[in-house]
Parts: sequence; structure tokens; C-alpha cells
Amino acid sequence: MSSTDTTPRVWSLLGIRVVSTGEGLAIMEMTPTEEMTNAAGFCHGGIISTLADTAMGRSVRTLVPGVVRSVSFDLKLTFISAAKVGETLQATGRVIHAGRRTAVTDCRVEGPGGKLVATASGTFVVTREKE
Amino acid sequence: MSSTDTTPRVWSLLGIRVVSTGEGLAIMEMTPTEEMTNAAGFCHGGIISTLADTAMGRSVRTLVPGVVRSVSFDLKLTFISAAKVGETLQATGRVIHAGRRTAVTDCRVEGPGGKLVATASGTFVVTREKE
Amino acid sequence: MSSTDTTPRVWSLLGIRVVSTGEGLAIMEMTPTEEMTNAAGFCHGGIISTLADTAMGRSVRTLVPGVVRSVSFDLKLTFISAAKVGETLQATGRVIHAGRRTAVTDCRVEGPGGKLVATASGTFVVTREKE
Amino acid sequence: MSSTDTTPRVWSLLGIRVVSTGEGLAIMEMTPTEEMTNAAGFCHGGIISTLADTAMGRSVRTLVPGVVRSVSFDLKLTFISAAKVGETLQATGRVIHAGRRTAVTDCRVEGPGGKLVATASGTFVVTREKE
Repeated sequence: MSSTDTTPRVWSLLGIRVVSTGEGLAIMEMTPTEEMTNAAGFCHGGIISTLADTAMGRSVRTLVPGVVRSVSFDLKLTFISAAKVGETLQATGRVIHAGRRTAVTDCRVEGPGGKLVATASGTFVVTREKE
Repeated sequence: MSSTDTTPRVWSLLGIRVVSTGEGLAIMEMTPTEEMTNAAGFCHGGIISTLADTAMGRSVRTLVPGVVRSVSFDLKLTFISAAKVGETLQATGRVIHAGRRTAVTDCRVEGPGGKLVATASGTFVVTREKE
Repeated sequence: MSSTDTTPRVWSLLGIRVVSTGEGLAIMEMTPTEEMTNAAGFCHGGIISTLADTAMGRSVRTLVPGVVRSVSFDLKLTFISAAKVGETLQATGRVIHAGRRTAVTDCRVEGPGGKLVATASGTFVVTREKE
Repeated sequence: MSSTDTTPRVWSLLGIRVVSTGEGLAIMEMTPTEEMTNAAGFCHGGIISTLADTAMGRSVRTLVPGVVRSVSFDLKLTFISAAKVGETLQATGRVIHAGRRTAVTDCRVEGPGGKLVATASGTFVVTREKE
């Protein structure tokens, strides 16, 4: 829920990596493994939530003036299609509003060929540099 | 997002276990490890989401007549306090409405001493026995 | 979204009234009229949202130390059954967590006989007395 | 929550009108009046919810094959800036996923100069022609 400059340990656990970032934007990837599956054999929704939350949180960290601390306050996911083991998911987190203390973000999680897997939105309480 | 009778693999990955269940109710536990942390060193919000989603999904599976398949459609979390490594979280998922094809659930995630860590709500598309 | 001590004008427009309040609790009522209906002839979901938002906002105003200003930041509704014209709806808003700057609330909207019409949750940014 | 071909009465109550529609898209407008205000004198969040729900519901009705019935199941709003009396709000509802039985939508509500007032997402249960 909160993040500073160190790479989160959970990224290693789930194989989450940064593809690219820009101001107010972060694209992250994760390739679901068998270990991440629900009983039906697809990637568990909570794991997809983790990826989406991560991409949104990372997008918040790209803001100028710099964000030294961000804590996710609210997270909402809508699951649209199942994510298969071995098929890389790409999450694009974007800041849609940034205030002094809060940031509102959204995210699209896509599978191969741009297939929409989930959409998400999140709000963050942020601490900016030199406050 | 979807579940059948097998134990989900993700439960093993995260150490999620069932404490108890009743009709329309499921209590699950998870003890955050270092591997599940965000950069601030607390349990990542997405992992808490996974626990909450799991408890709500499990509560749906307790319905009568039996649910042979449930797919989470929508998941919402509000994060209230940080969850520390080593401090067991208990998630209580409850069905607050069950229709023929959908179920609406909520969940409280609590830490030691009943400290409120997160609240969640979720909607599921369900398939009942003998439909 | 924001409120001070005056009775909101929208309460008059929609016939919203306070039934009772307690610390962290507010029960409000509204009786849908023909003017509030969607094309199917039931009370429009947005009007139910207004009632729920109002009950949650009112529950926030009951906190001690006093809240001099509250602004809803996030509002989520799940609609469960249709609300008919002339059948009074009762919304019970409760504060489930209150911090110095934020409050988290939930709400049940019920029709006659306690029939569940909608559930809601909301987060508020609050300003407390003597801050 | 539900809609058929008749114009909803609530549109008249709140002065909601269609600006334009396309496949999977609907742009609606509303000009807040004094009657719609909260105690702080701004347009009540629930009224903004009504506008957003309406734009999303209308976007669902533009789908091909035709939707003969749509019922909103879930509605989420994030409020970003206050909406003043007399300043027209424009809500752009878009279908981001349409299945046989469900549709997922989002919405931006903007004030004068494109100022972002709120974002919303909604899910609808739909009945298509000739099912």
C-alpha cells in the first residue's frame, strides 16, 4: 500500500517488472505462473490486482514535483477476461488527476494481442518533495 | 477469478488457509512474509486484495443450492491501516445478497486485536447446481 | 460532495429526511416519486446514490471531535433490487473508520420489509474542529 | 437502474440531455441548479452520479446487436473537483467491454474548459435483441 525508493519484494515474488515510465504513466508486465492460479487454473484475480495496483502506484511516483511517499487508499478492479498461465500481462497505469495530497489513477490490464483482461482505478494519498 | 473444487495454487504461494465457513460466510487467514512486502516494508495491497477476494469467493461457495462455479466480476478495496510482516490477517467474507446468477459479498480484513486493515466488496457471477 | 451546517437544497428536491443519528451513524429516508424514475419506471440508480451518499455524509458529521467540513471523495454502489415509486427507502450510513483527515463509511439501502435495494461505500476527506 | 425506450423522468427533473451518441459512446449534459446543491453550495455528488450513470447507461444502449434492456449493477465515482451552479457538466460515457450479458463502461464528467469533475465506472446487465 505504501512505497518508497526500494524495489518492492512482492515484485520479485510475482515477477513484476517495469516496461517503461513517463510523467504520470507506468507500464508494467507480469507473466502468470502455475503458482498464481485459482482453482480453475487461471491467474487469480488478486494477483492481477497486485499488478494493477503496482502499475498505478508506479505512475504516481513519476509525478513532478516528486512524490516521496504514496499510499494506496482505494482500489477497484473489474475483471473482463481470464488470464492464462504463461501469457504475459501488461498493465498501463496512468495518473488522471494529481493534487497536492491525493492522486487518482486508472489502469488497463491487457493480455496477448491487446485482449482486455481487467480495468482498475485507484486513489493514493501522496507526500510530495519539500512539503 | 474463477474457482472449482480444487484448492487454488495461489493459496499455497501466499499461505492462505481456511479458518471456518458457514452458509454465506468464510473466514480465512494469511500471515504476511517479507516476500509479500511493498517498498515500505508492509504487506502489499494487492496481496491483501488476494486474501479478501479469496474469502469472498469462498463465502460464495458455501451457498445452498450449491455453487459449482463462481467468477469474480468486480472487486473493491479500501485500505485503512498497514499490515506488518508476521502479523496474521484474518479476512471475513460474507454473502450479502445471492441471486440465481450473481452474488454480492463484503469482507473485513483485520490484524491482531481486531485492528481494521481493509474493507472490501465483490460481485460474483455464479453457476448453481442443476441449472 | 461537500457539506457544512446548512440543510442541503438537494434534500428538499428529493424529499430526503433524517430519521435518526448516533455517533458514527445516520439513518435517512426518501420516498421515490414518478419524477425520479428511469425509463423502466423504477427509482433511478443515481437518485439512490444520492440518498446513500447523504446518509454516509451525515454519519461522518456525527463524529467527535466534530467534523466541520466533509467532502466525499469516492462513492461506490451495488444495486441489488429495484426501488418502486411510493415505497419508502431507508438508508443506514455508518462510519467504519475515522482518521484525522479521512473517514470510511458504508451504507445499506432498504425498502419495505427490509428488502435490500443497494449497498454502498464511501470515503470522505474531513476537517475536524480545532485543527 | 433499468431502462427501456422511454425517456427517463429523472432526466427532466435534473435537466439531463443527450449531446451526441455513437456506437458504444454517449455524451450527456446537465447544468446544476440551486436545487441540486449540497450544504456547501456545490452540485451534490449524488446528482453527478446520476448524470454519469445516465451517460454510461445510454452508451450501453448504442450497442449492436441492440440492447433492449440494461440494468446498472455497480456504479463507482471518484470526485475530483467541485461543480458550480450554472456551469454545465458534460459526461462522456463509453463502453469498454461488451459481452452477451454484461457491459463494462467508464465515464468522465467535465466542467467548463474540460476541467475534470469526476470519473466513474459502471457495470450493466444487458438483454440483447433476439436472445
